[in-house]
Amino acid sequence: LDTDSIEQARARQAQLTKPAGSLGRLEEVAVQMAGITRSVTPIVQRRAVVVMAADHGVTAEGVSAYPKDVTPQMVLNFLAGGAAINALARQAQADVTVVDIGVAADLEHPQLLSRKVRRGTANMAREAAMSQAEVLQAITTGIEVMENLAAQGVDLVATGEMGIGNTTAASAITASLLNVPAEHVTGRGTGIDDQQLTHKVRIIEQAIAHNVPDVEQPLDVLAKLGGLEIAGLVGVILAAAAHRIPVIIDGFISSAAALVAVALAPAARDYLFAGHLSVERGHRLILEKLGLEPLLTLHLRLGEGTGAVLAMHIIEGALRTHSEMSTFAEAGVSDKEA
Amino acid sequence: LDTDSIEQARARQAQLTKPAGSLGRLEEVAVQMAGITRSVTPIVQRRAVVVMAADHGVTAEGVSAYPKDVTPQMVLNFLAGGAAINALARQAQADVTVVDIGVAADLEHPQLLSRKVRRGTANMAREAAMSQAEVLQAITTGIEVMENLAAQGVDLVATGEMGIGNTTAASAITASLLNVPAEHVTGRGTGIDDQQLTHKVRIIEQAIAHNVPDVEQPLDVLAKLGGLEIAGLVGVILAAAAHRIPVIIDGFISSAAALVAVALAPAARDYLFAGHLSVERGHRLILEKLGLEPLLTLHLRLGEGTGAVLAMHIIEGALRTHSEMSTFAEAGVSDKEA
Repeated sequence: LDTDSIEQARARQAQLTKPAGSLGRLEEVAVQMAGITRSVTPIVQRRAVVVMAADHGVTAEGVSAYPKDVTPQMVLNFLAGGAAINALARQAQADVTVVDIGVAADLEHPQLLSRKVRRGTANMAREAAMSQAEVLQAITTGIEVMENLAAQGVDLVATGEMGIGNTTAASAITASLLNVPAEHVTGRGTGIDDQQLTHKVRIIEQAIAHNVPDVEQPLDVLAKLGGLEIAGLVGVILAAAAHRIPVIIDGFISSAAALVAVALAPAARDYLFAGHLSVERGHRLILEKLGLEPLLTLHLRLGEGTGAVLAMHIIEGALRTHSEMSTFAEAGVSDKEA
Repeated sequence: LDTDSIEQARARQAQLTKPAGSLGRLEEVAVQMAGITRSVTPIVQRRAVVVMAADHGVTAEGVSAYPKDVTPQMVLNFLAGGAAINALARQAQADVTVVDIGVAADLEHPQLLSRKVRRGTANMAREAAMSQAEVLQAITTGIEVMENLAAQGVDLVATGEMGIGNTTAASAITASLLNVPAEHVTGRGTGIDDQQLTHKVRIIEQAIAHNVPDVEQPLDVLAKLGGLEIAGLVGVILAAAAHRIPVIIDGFISSAAALVAVALAPAARDYLFAGHLSVERGHRLILEKLGLEPLLTLHLRLGEGTGAVLAMHIIEGALRTHSEMSTFAEAGVSDKEA
């Protein structure tokens, strides 16, 4: 990050008409945004959320509460504007970019970016979710999507995803990269019961035991345990950071992508904001590992980018107070007594 | 609250295209808003924040890090649009109503509501902060301000305040009404050091010992320990609840007003949302007593209504997802497998 802009932004915060530090996280966000954008008083002009959709072969093992048909159905719902992410994106005035990076169904729509790498991953409980070539293609797809958004002037991006079975993939990736037992990072996803949760943990353990991912090689972990949409979001995060564009990561699945992205390129971490803390139990561990404090804690567990887009208002509030407030001198207000 | 609207809002939430409960607090907020407004799909059309300003005689004891001149200076800053609350209210498209309910200086401005009950409270460490007649006048002032806003179509209101010394008053009120030691509910306000904090606690203890407020009589506590702006906000909360208008309370001082309001009229509690959790240590205890969970936790400690206005975006997000999302049937999405 740009240390000059950070210093100047801190100095500005100290002169604004409020007790020092009294805007808490808003002050930190404004200063980080200054460092990211190289501007002392940054503004956001165009917001977007990228929703990457893909299917997961591991759903054959019965790890989800919903049938996998829901992935394409929800993609069409996003394109029709009827999902939670659409409502929240309209509120935040954010563009919604929906990418079919691996849905196991034929989908066509004028607003859909059709970038299918394959029709869903393979079942990681029995084989690698995808090949090394496929994981690279998925990451490259994410990079290209983000490059296009950057070219259109997007200067704040949120990550979102849809894919029945993707908490299973995210848990497997997290267990591997953080080297913790699967049960510590496996949650109820869309809403499974205790028995199904035990089964889900066992399937993740089986997938890791069978594939033996090399935990020193994030791309190997990503390929074997999968998630085409997770790989796509890795590309989005890397490209955004390269363009000095701040990224708001959403919940558990997006954060698994962030974990991989930061493992590949540690500098990307400084461009990230954690939109919220999800109910999914693995999420907190990832955020701690990345050193990110969530902006919101609303017990969300939907994904799609919902918590990230809602957090845009907090970032906007941070920038507005930082840029618009008068200084003590401008307003003729007495500063703290020495 | 209206139980029919609550039931119907819950039924609607269950049909929306998301796993049940996956929008967490947003779902709860939408259902509560339905109960408050008697509408299954409530909308907010006009937002406002009421900023009540007043001075505190107890500042003579050296309880604050800032001189009391800052109260009128900040009122002028609010009226000029240069304070944090102005920036956040512009973002949230909320009107800012500034009320001089007891500033110890002459203030005139076309946008200022001049409703001075007296020029600051008396020093509660030595005498009652105000008389019973004055506390009633301050509450009535708040009621009238809120009645006017309701007549103008305001259907979501946030509480805000300004008054050097007012965390001292709020701590004294909280210690009395919750029957806890002053040191448990006394914080650093605008930023005092350890020694000043010890002194502040002692002054609060002295004020309570000298005035002997009747903890069964919330108006007696409020009159003796003061806060003209706190009394004004009690009136705002009571009038909003009477008009079935939801109120977002801000930090510690606003919450002390909510504590008094709910003690006077327990039904008012259901019309309240806690905008955020303040750094001020007494705040959490009040919210627990009122059974309110804060919508935001951003380490704010500024007051003015800042956290409450920022929380308007969360409430808006709750209402938009609730009203705008498609149902499973509308979108042709499969529901959870039985």
